[in-house]
Amino acid sequence: MSEEANKELSHVDAEGRIVMVDVGAKAVTTRLAEASARVLMSPETVAAIRERRTPKGDPLETARLAGIMAAKRTSDLIPLCHSLALTHVDIQITLVDDGAELTGTASTSAQTGVEMEALTAVSVAALTLYDMCKAIDRAMTITDIRLERKSGGRSGEWRRSDER
Amino acid sequence: MSEEANKELSHVDAEGRIVMVDVGAKAVTTRLAEASARVLMSPETVAAIRERRTPKGDPLETARLAGIMAAKRTSDLIPLCHSLALTHVDIQITLVDDGAELTGTASTSAQTGVEMEALTAVSVAALTLYDMCKAIDRAMTITDIRLERKSGGRSGEWRRSDER
Amino acid sequence: MSEEANKELSHVDAEGRIVMVDVGAKAVTTRLAEASARVLMSPETVAAIRERRTPKGDPLETARLAGIMAAKRTSDLIPLCHSLALTHVDIQITLVDDGAELTGTASTSAQTGVEMEALTAVSVAALTLYDMCKAIDRAMTITDIRLERKSGGRSGEWRRSDER
Amino acid sequence: MSEEANKELSHVDAEGRIVMVDVGAKAVTTRLAEASARVLMSPETVAAIRERRTPKGDPLETARLAGIMAAKRTSDLIPLCHSLALTHVDIQITLVDDGAELTGTASTSAQTGVEMEALTAVSVAALTLYDMCKAIDRAMTITDIRLERKSGGRSGEWRRSDER
Amino acid sequence: MSEEANKELSHVDAEGRIVMVDVGAKAVTTRLAEASARVLMSPETVAAIRERRTPKGDPLETARLAGIMAAKRTSDLIPLCHSLALTHVDIQITLVDDGAELTGTASTSAQTGVEMEALTAVSVAALTLYDMCKAIDRAMTITDIRLERKSGGRSGEWRRSDER
Amino acid sequence: MSEEANKELSHVDAEGRIVMVDVGAKAVTTRLAEASARVLMSPETVAAIRERRTPKGDPLETARLAGIMAAKRTSDLIPLCHSLALTHVDIQITLVDDGAELTGTASTSAQTGVEMEALTAVSVAALTLYDMCKAIDRAMTITDIRLERKSGGRSGEWRRSDER
Repeated sequence: MSEEANKELSHVDAEGRIVMVDVGAKAVTTRLAEASARVLMSPETVAAIRERRTPKGDPLETARLAGIMAAKRTSDLIPLCHSLALTHVDIQITLVDDGAELTGTASTSAQTGVEMEALTAVSVAALTLYDMCKAIDRAMTITDIRLERKSGGRSGEWRRSDER
Repeated sequence: MSEEANKELSHVDAEGRIVMVDVGAKAVTTRLAEASARVLMSPETVAAIRERRTPKGDPLETARLAGIMAAKRTSDLIPLCHSLALTHVDIQITLVDDGAELTGTASTSAQTGVEMEALTAVSVAALTLYDMCKAIDRAMTITDIRLERKSGGRSGEWRRSDER
Repeated sequence: MSEEANKELSHVDAEGRIVMVDVGAKAVTTRLAEASARVLMSPETVAAIRERRTPKGDPLETARLAGIMAAKRTSDLIPLCHSLALTHVDIQITLVDDGAELTGTASTSAQTGVEMEALTAVSVAALTLYDMCKAIDRAMTITDIRLERKSGGRSGEWRRSDER
Repeated sequence: MSEEANKELSHVDAEGRIVMVDVGAKAVTTRLAEASARVLMSPETVAAIRERRTPKGDPLETARLAGIMAAKRTSDLIPLCHSLALTHVDIQITLVDDGAELTGTASTSAQTGVEMEALTAVSVAALTLYDMCKAIDRAMTITDIRLERKSGGRSGEWRRSDER
Repeated sequence: MSEEANKELSHVDAEGRIVMVDVGAKAVTTRLAEASARVLMSPETVAAIRERRTPKGDPLETARLAGIMAAKRTSDLIPLCHSLALTHVDIQITLVDDGAELTGTASTSAQTGVEMEALTAVSVAALTLYDMCKAIDRAMTITDIRLERKSGGRSGEWRRSDER
Repeated sequence: MSEEANKELSHVDAEGRIVMVDVGAKAVTTRLAEASARVLMSPETVAAIRERRTPKGDPLETARLAGIMAAKRTSDLIPLCHSLALTHVDIQITLVDDGAELTGTASTSAQTGVEMEALTAVSVAALTLYDMCKAIDRAMTITDIRLERKSGGRSGEWRRSDER
């Protein structure tokens, strides 16, 4: 086992055990993360959603709410994630010609970051869109779930465009 | 609002309200669903995971367990999903050169299908892999979350290859 | 302690201990319950909600979804309630001059009734309405949470109007 | 859509989307909320509860515990509620001639108030009372769930008697 | 790896992966399990609990309720446990000279047994007793958590006394 | 009711009601707790686990993860426990000749201690071990669940060896 990789894979200790990271010595700072995802749909599905955006209900709003609620429960889902009190979660969903584009942000003032909360938010919102449209289109694909940026903490600002 | 689309978008009623589907009149049958997903990683991340697959711990097992546990809680996450008792959930994760490939199956004997359970299983397993490797590689992307096949219920067998 | 009352207070046993009812010997039948509730609001609050019912979002839909999700988790909230798989939950919310009127139904095919699920659905929907409007009107009152009817099980059909 | 109402309905943004309030810029202060509720019961039900208050068990204690536990999970139930660490929850239940009167308080040191926690506490305690007595009296009504006072935060002290 | 042990350790498959048991082919039968546990306390702690068993509250009832509620959530806690609808859970707690003795039973009509539900019930009840008394006695020990008997399913009746 | 015992049994108030402790006036300090437990197994069971500790999966890791996840949900299980954000949880499991020895630590920076979190962690890890081995050995016993030490808060350092 190389020394170097060991340092990096933060959830595996020197003996190879899966561990939670101890954040007790980290500073409480304002932390924000933004993630995105896409749901690829047939044109018929996109049209069906557009037609249903009526004053009485909106499939996109249901998906947004599901994502916000899931973000609050991230530490219940991801085994080694710390529980923390989010100060804000938001999800934007835009219908495009071939499906839906989702962006989610999570923020907190805590000793650890909120990347997983933002990623969980868009993932569960996307799954909810799938659920609501699956009777029309079982072949929908959820894709490109990724972190767009994060700020706060020792590692500071990170943006996807910085790297690729 | 066209009559036809309304019939298809099963979670929106005639007035445009978001609704749960009433499955009370459906038959209890054996139902199975299989979903898949991929996590794209840098070669360094793949190598780091390979090195950590020691007798004492394995990041892939942690991800598998997280997915199995999440499948059991699907109805807590997806607002209009029915709760049901799964008879089995399994997740396979294979490391490949550019990341990890995940396949998940869920089965039950119930009045409604388990597509969302299988999709939730692979999604949360993929998010857990992201969490465990993010200290090395924040740019990982979760992609191609999709239903591969389903069986049981009135609509019977469906396979992705049947359609595309 | 009178013998008679003891038989009736089903969650207290002969020794005075709080107990769960054993439903193992009950028949699996189709069961339905309907509950209602009201949220009393100032005319300004009612007007504010009416104005916000736009194609992009609707406070009443958020409340409906919260109630549906809570109904599925009733046995987590009510200590002696059995967990069961609901086949359907629905909530209707109507704005009236002095607030909102809520009706909720829950149904299942199980060994025990779903009165608590229907009551939990309207209660949490009403609390969610309160949450969304509280910045305008902290004095809102949630009132008249009650069972309207139930069917199924040994005791059969019951309707509120039958009794009062 | 009038500008003014928009500012007040804090969970709806300028575009009409349902949103979580961003509390990141709010001060951490000690916050307290008190709520109350009533459960209207037949005299027979009140008598049955009185008889059951034995050294071995008490329906009112079960209801109190259910309310305390529910208060801790408020953010799981109310979609746009922030999760926070309560420093205290208490519920008082008094039997009166026509039912039960409930008062609940919740407190925390956080960036947002605990009105919903206090209201959820009394609501779930009242639902639990209903559950325990429903075999005697299905016609019970839960009523007058309302906020009595709150303190802390930018808006400071508020008391119900101040307004009506 | 010996063939034989592999068959026996039911949650590990032929490749050494941790797996959920597929119960889809098992018969739905009435299943019951009984478990027990003890909490060893100082005489002062036992005396303190005895004094507190008043008409208004009882630490043992709180522990019993916590155990009943936990039994309903066993599949959320134990990763490879199937979720199922319990028809009954009961917990008995008896104060003895050196502490408390707990017995718990769980029953269901399902495709898999309820040993874990009975064991979880007594464990969480015991932990709750610890919590309520820890200000007096941090040295309490929870001990002898074990299955007493089970019935139902292919393996039929099992009693602890049969084996040791 | 003696005045003295009343002061000590912190979850029972002067009237005998079960109450949550108000920690609002306590200082936020770094708090740590360590707990331990044992699972007594037949030699055959110990041997079966040893054989299964392969590069692809390990029953002990599954138990460790279950305990870590349960620690994060302690306040959902123990009725009067405060919810708090743990900065770290760790569980060590060692196979010995007659079973497994577990040690768990939990830490936080909060107004209340984490004894229950450490005890819950080892209890649920032990239950998970039972679940994974029960097909071989139903007679396993979970024993000696106890607090080993705690630090932080007004009462400061406590060690089991200090007392017995």
